[in-house]
Amino acid sequence: MMETDSILDSFNKPKTLNEVHSKAVQFVTNCQKAETKKLVLVTSGGTSVPLEKNRVRHLDNFSTGWRGSASAEEFLKAEYAVIFLYRKNSFFPFTRHLPCENSNERLLQCLQIDKESGKVYLENDDEKIKNGIRDYQAYTSKNLFLPIQFVTLDEYLHFLHALCLAMKPLKSKAMVYLPAAVSDFYVPYKELPEHKIQSEIAAKGLTINLQPVPKLIRHLTKNWVDCAFVISFKLETDATILQQKAVDSLKKYGQHVVVANILKTKSQQVTVISEQMSSVIELSQDDIKNRVEIESKLVPFLTGLHDSYLSTIK
Amino acid sequence: MMETDSILDSFNKPKTLNEVHSKAVQFVTNCQKAETKKLVLVTSGGTSVPLEKNRVRHLDNFSTGWRGSASAEEFLKAEYAVIFLYRKNSFFPFTRHLPCENSNERLLQCLQIDKESGKVYLENDDEKIKNGIRDYQAYTSKNLFLPIQFVTLDEYLHFLHALCLAMKPLKSKAMVYLPAAVSDFYVPYKELPEHKIQSEIAAKGLTINLQPVPKLIRHLTKNWVDCAFVISFKLETDATILQQKAVDSLKKYGQHVVVANILKTKSQQVTVISEQMSSVIELSQDDIKNRVEIESKLVPFLTGLHDSYLSTIK
Repeated sequence: MMETDSILDSFNKPKTLNEVHSKAVQFVTNCQKAETKKLVLVTSGGTSVPLEKNRVRHLDNFSTGWRGSASAEEFLKAEYAVIFLYRKNSFFPFTRHLPCENSNERLLQCLQIDKESGKVYLENDDEKIKNGIRDYQAYTSKNLFLPIQFVTLDEYLHFLHALCLAMKPLKSKAMVYLPAAVSDFYVPYKELPEHKIQSEIAAKGLTINLQPVPKLIRHLTKNWVDCAFVISFKLETDATILQQKAVDSLKKYGQHVVVANILKTKSQQVTVISEQMSSVIELSQDDIKNRVEIESKLVPFLTGLHDSYLSTIK
Repeated sequence: MMETDSILDSFNKPKTLNEVHSKAVQFVTNCQKAETKKLVLVTSGGTSVPLEKNRVRHLDNFSTGWRGSASAEEFLKAEYAVIFLYRKNSFFPFTRHLPCENSNERLLQCLQIDKESGKVYLENDDEKIKNGIRDYQAYTSKNLFLPIQFVTLDEYLHFLHALCLAMKPLKSKAMVYLPAAVSDFYVPYKELPEHKIQSEIAAKGLTINLQPVPKLIRHLTKNWVDCAFVISFKLETDATILQQKAVDSLKKYGQHVVVANILKTKSQQVTVISEQMSSVIELSQDDIKNRVEIESKLVPFLTGLHDSYLSTIK
């Protein structure tokens, strides 16, 4: 049984918390035995904040999980072991190119039944898809990839805590990489109405009062991890305020790097900001033509920073 | 160009509205030519209500879309043509038994590459899955199934209106079947902030003021359709208020039938309520053992009511 942090007391404890923690402890132990050099926890997708205990209505942060899942693949390529904490039904590493990712109807259109063998096969099986299947099988069989699913903010926060605790023994070899879109607001579990909010009560409208989610990143860098290299993300829709917000965040919360991006350009340009530097990483026109993903440039840059960090610690 | 109803003025008009309308008009024309006897519009899944124009935060109604997609299959079996208005990423008819429906990871675990042919095939291809693929191909090739996707409440309402208009020529042969979980509240598009709500503004919490969505069902039964048989759903988490709410709804909004259900038991029991009668439809212990779906009992019951209705109209 792991101990929960009292800062999470107002967030409903998931039933599977101990199970998730044990899985992660086992995964980290295996990585240590196999002498895997570095491990990263990647968060991905958006959180759901219930407005009723019987979760009918909820507040959601939109995020496809493309960045998180593409990054997870890049970290695996860079020989990191990866714990992938992701929102159910968001993008998943290695299946990003499968036809089902955007619609089940698309998948259905691609499935055919072979007349001779009776097997169901994928009509549209290009090399990207096959490579995805091969990579997934390879990394999984080598115990280098552990996916953990969440839906609600409560699950996200408790699982994040449990996973950080499990990674503690790795010290500075651990990286925490946080592109998930986490709600800034919530209704504490004890204050949630038991039943669906009645429409009549709100015939003239509905007012929802949300409380701010405690800034857990400060808590994470100070207490949940032990010297891990922590990277957070700032996503804004307004470019004019982005850089300043990223710098402020770095000072206040003690993470090592902030990756700043603007909603509309985030797949082509990001700014990596640390105490020492600010670097713009972007795709060229050629890159865009060749469908290069920005994560294939961002992740190697970040693993480089992690290496420098490791050399200063030793 | 179809005319929009002024009652929808405060809902952002989707760019694809005319395209959706034309598709539906073509579908209905084909059905009339083929002398398809009856047509049903099935809505499915929950709506998303944006809280910002750049949709980062949004309010969501939870619904898997299981009922809608299972019902669509049953209506096709009952020789209805089906227009399926469904939330992106909710359950889809004929793929409900595919391993990807609950997780892309599950799908990935089931995909294998055949060593000889190099084809990607589904390892776990039981008969339910194969039948789904066969049925989908058959109904689609016969022009009996038209899926239309939505995400936001704005899309849902405008598309619902466009589809009803397209179905008008079918008069009482048309059925409108509304299990989708539609938000009762929204923020009018013109009042939405352009950019992401700043967390600082709301350091002490955030208050969201939502306006009630106009009760469009009354408008639908009176103006959007011409004698179509209309079935709405009442989902509650509190059994004590359900029956009364269903009866009230029937009187107020002019639909022909309300299907009332409780969140926790909705896959085992529903109550069908019309002006003339109230019938409980439920699964027996044997049904549950044999994985009978309640929609396989509910839909034939409703098509029976539709037939009676047709005989009174003629």
